[in-house]
Amino acid sequence: MTVHTPTARLSVPVEAFRLANGLDVVVVPDRRAPVVTHMVWYRNGSADDPAGKSGIAHFLEHLMFKGTARWPAGEFSKIVAGYGGQENAFTSFDYTAYFQRVPKEHLRAMMDYEADRMTGLAFDESVVAPERDVVLEERRMRVDADPAAQLGEEFSSALFVHHPYGTPIIGWEHEIEGLTRDDAFTYYQRFYTPENAILVVAGDTDLDEVRTLAEATYGQIAARGQAPVRKRPAEPAPRAARRVSLSDPRVRQPSLRRGWLTPTYLSGDRSEAFALELVADILGGGTTSRLYRQLCVEQELAAGASAYFMGSMVDRAAFQMSTSPRPGIDMAALEAGLDVALTTFLADGPSEIELSRARTRLVAETIFARDSQSSLARIFGASLAVGETVEDVLAWPERIEAVTREAVIEAARRYLRPDRSVTGLLLPAA
Amino acid sequence: MTVHTPTARLSVPVEAFRLANGLDVVVVPDRRAPVVTHMVWYRNGSADDPAGKSGIAHFLEHLMFKGTARWPAGEFSKIVAGYGGQENAFTSFDYTAYFQRVPKEHLRAMMDYEADRMTGLAFDESVVAPERDVVLEERRMRVDADPAAQLGEEFSSALFVHHPYGTPIIGWEHEIEGLTRDDAFTYYQRFYTPENAILVVAGDTDLDEVRTLAEATYGQIAARGQAPVRKRPAEPAPRAARRVSLSDPRVRQPSLRRGWLTPTYLSGDRSEAFALELVADILGGGTTSRLYRQLCVEQELAAGASAYFMGSMVDRAAFQMSTSPRPGIDMAALEAGLDVALTTFLADGPSEIELSRARTRLVAETIFARDSQSSLARIFGASLAVGETVEDVLAWPERIEAVTREAVIEAARRYLRPDRSVTGLLLPAA
Repeated sequence: MTVHTPTARLSVPVEAFRLANGLDVVVVPDRRAPVVTHMVWYRNGSADDPAGKSGIAHFLEHLMFKGTARWPAGEFSKIVAGYGGQENAFTSFDYTAYFQRVPKEHLRAMMDYEADRMTGLAFDESVVAPERDVVLEERRMRVDADPAAQLGEEFSSALFVHHPYGTPIIGWEHEIEGLTRDDAFTYYQRFYTPENAILVVAGDTDLDEVRTLAEATYGQIAARGQAPVRKRPAEPAPRAARRVSLSDPRVRQPSLRRGWLTPTYLSGDRSEAFALELVADILGGGTTSRLYRQLCVEQELAAGASAYFMGSMVDRAAFQMSTSPRPGIDMAALEAGLDVALTTFLADGPSEIELSRARTRLVAETIFARDSQSSLARIFGASLAVGETVEDVLAWPERIEAVTREAVIEAARRYLRPDRSVTGLLLPAA
Repeated sequence: MTVHTPTARLSVPVEAFRLANGLDVVVVPDRRAPVVTHMVWYRNGSADDPAGKSGIAHFLEHLMFKGTARWPAGEFSKIVAGYGGQENAFTSFDYTAYFQRVPKEHLRAMMDYEADRMTGLAFDESVVAPERDVVLEERRMRVDADPAAQLGEEFSSALFVHHPYGTPIIGWEHEIEGLTRDDAFTYYQRFYTPENAILVVAGDTDLDEVRTLAEATYGQIAARGQAPVRKRPAEPAPRAARRVSLSDPRVRQPSLRRGWLTPTYLSGDRSEAFALELVADILGGGTTSRLYRQLCVEQELAAGASAYFMGSMVDRAAFQMSTSPRPGIDMAALEAGLDVALTTFLADGPSEIELSRARTRLVAETIFARDSQSSLARIFGASLAVGETVEDVLAWPERIEAVTREAVIEAARRYLRPDRSVTGLLLPAA
C-alpha cells in the first residue's frame, strides 16, 4: 500500500485579481523557460447557444479569427507564427477559450490582440457565409464520415434529453446552416465582454508585470455593467433505462458505452463528484482497473475497457464507461460481462488496495499536470470558467484524498443504477 | 370487396371568413338540435413554450379560468352550467382550445366571454401560485403515479431529442415549479391575440348570425399588427435505433411500443402522410388488422396490438405501434413476433383486401365524424390551427382514396426502418 502524505494540496504559486471592468486575471509564474502561455476564457459554451441556434458558440470561435480593423484576417496568426509561437482556440459545453504560447517578450502583443478582438471583431458579411461552409465541412468530416461520432451524438441526446449538453458542441447541421451574421453579432455582443472573461497567464512573468500589461490593454475596455447570465433548461430526472444502437458498414471495431447522469463540482452534492472521480478510476483507469482486469485479462471478452468522469461541468456530468469486444466475441456476451463486473462492484465496493491506488493515481495526475505550463493554465481557466475557485483547484488533491470507502460505494450505488443507464452500441452492418 | 364511390369528398356546409382584426372564423351550420358548439383555438401549444418554460401553454390554459374584471373566477362557469351547457379546454403540442356547448340562444354570451378573456385576464398574483400547485398535482397524479405515463414521456424524449414535441405538454416538473406570473403574462401577451385565434361555431346558427355576433364581440378587439411566429428547433435526422425500458412494481400489464419520425400534412411530403394513415390502419386498426391477427389471434403472443398515426402536426409526426403480451409470454418473444410481422409487411406490402378495407374505414370515420357537432368543430379547429385549410379537411377522404398500393409500400419502407426506430418497454419490477 502506498503511504499518503497528510497534505496532497497542489503547491502552485498562483495569484488572482480582477480589473475594474470586471475581467478576472489569474497569474501562474513559471520561470523554467522564457515563454508564456496566454489564454482568454469566456464563460459561455455551446450549452449557452440560444434555442434553435446550436453551433453558434463554435461558429463564433471561428469568426474570431476573421479579423478586426487593426488586424485583418490572418495577420495576427502570421505574427504569432513569426515569433515561433503557437495559437489555438476551442469551444466546449461551458466555455470558449483562446490561447497563444510565445516567447515572454511578446506577452503584451498577445494582450493587445485579444483585447482588440474582444470588442472589435469586423463581422464582414463576406466572411460569414464561407466560414459557415467551413464549419459545415468540419461537421461532415468529424461526424458524417465517422459512425462512432454519430453514435456519440445519439448517446449524448439520450443522456441529456432536455439540457443542451445533449446537443453537439458543433451544432446540428440544419441549425448551423441557418446561422447568420446577425445571430453571430448578437451572440458576440452578449458574451464577449470583460465581465464574462478570464485571463490566464502562466509562465515567465509575475503578478506585477501581468497587472501592468493587463490594465494597459484589457483594462481599456469599458465594463458592460454586468456579466451575461447562463439560462439553460435543466435536465429532468431519468426514469428509464435507455439504449441507442447504430449499425454501419464502416464499423471495423464494434464498441459499447454506458453512461449515467451525475452531480458535478458545481451542481448537486459536490462530495459525490469527488467520490465519482475515484469510482471512475477504480473501474476503468488504465490496465490495472476492475473492468480492464475482468473483461480484458481474466474473461478475455474485451479488447479494451475504460471509465471516465469529468465533474467540472456547470450543470450535470456524465459518468461513462466504454469497452470493445475481442474478435469473435459477441456484444451480448461482452455486455453480460460488463453487467456482472458492475453488479459485483456495486455489491462489494472497492478493496482498500483499489481505493488507495486510485487516490494515488488521481493525486499524481495533478502533480504531473503542474509540470506543464499549458496544462496548468488550462486547469485554472477551465475551473474558473465553470465557477470553481483557485482554492478549489489547489485543494482538489486533498479532497480526493479525503473521500472514504463508504462515500465511494454510496455514490456508485446512487448513480450507476442499471435502470437509469444509457447504453450505446456501435455495430457493423447486420 | 367494398366498392368505393368515385368521390369520397366530405360534404359539410362550412363557411369561413376573417374579421378585420385578423381573427379567422369558421361556421358549420347543423340544424338538427337547438344547440351550438363554440370554440376558440389559439395557434400556440406546448411546442411553442419558451426554452426552460415548459408547461406554460398548459398553465395559461388553467389561468384562463381565473377571471377577468367583468367575470371573476368561476362566475362564467356557473352561468354555462346554469344554461345546462358544458365547457372545457385543452392544450396540445400545436394549439390550445376553449369550448362551450350551449343552447343556441346563448351563443352571444359565449362570444362575449371568450372575447373578454382573450385580452382582459386578471392575472392576480394571488391565484398564480395556488394554480401552479394545482398543475403540479395534476402532473403528479397523471405521471408520477403512472409508470405507463412515465414511459410515455421517456419514449417521446427518445423520439424527439431536440424538437419540443419531446417535452411533455404539461411540462417538466422542475420547470412548472419555476413558472411565474410574469412568465404567464408575457406568454399571454404574445399569443392571445385575434390574429393568432380561430373561432369555430358549429350548430344551429348560420353565417350571417355568426358574422354579426362575432363582429360585435371579437371584432371589438384591437389588432396587434401581426400574428406571433412559431419558432421551434427542428429535429435532426435520427441515426440510431433507440430503446427505453422502464420497470416498476406497479406494472400489472407489460407493454411494448415502437415509433418512428415521419412527415406530416404540413411538413415534408404531404402525400406520404396520407399513405402513412393507411399503413397505420392496415397494420393496427382494430381486430382485423395485421398486427392484431398475427400477434393476438394466430400466434397467441399478444393481448392487444394497434398502430397509430396522426399527421396533423406542424413539424413532425410519430408513427406508433403498441402491443401487450399475453400472460406467460415474455417480451422478447412478443418483440420477435412484432419484428416478423413488420418485416413481412415491408417486404410484401398490403393485400388489395387490406388496402381496400383500410381506405373504407378511414373514409367512413370521417363520415361518422360528420354526425357529431362537436367532432366537426374539433376537426376544423385542429386542422386550421396547425395550418391546414377548410379545403384540406373536405378533400381528406378523397386524398385517402387516391393513395396507391405502391405509395403505401414506399412510405412504409422509407419510414418504418428498424435502424431508425424507437422502442419503449414497460416491465414489472425485475
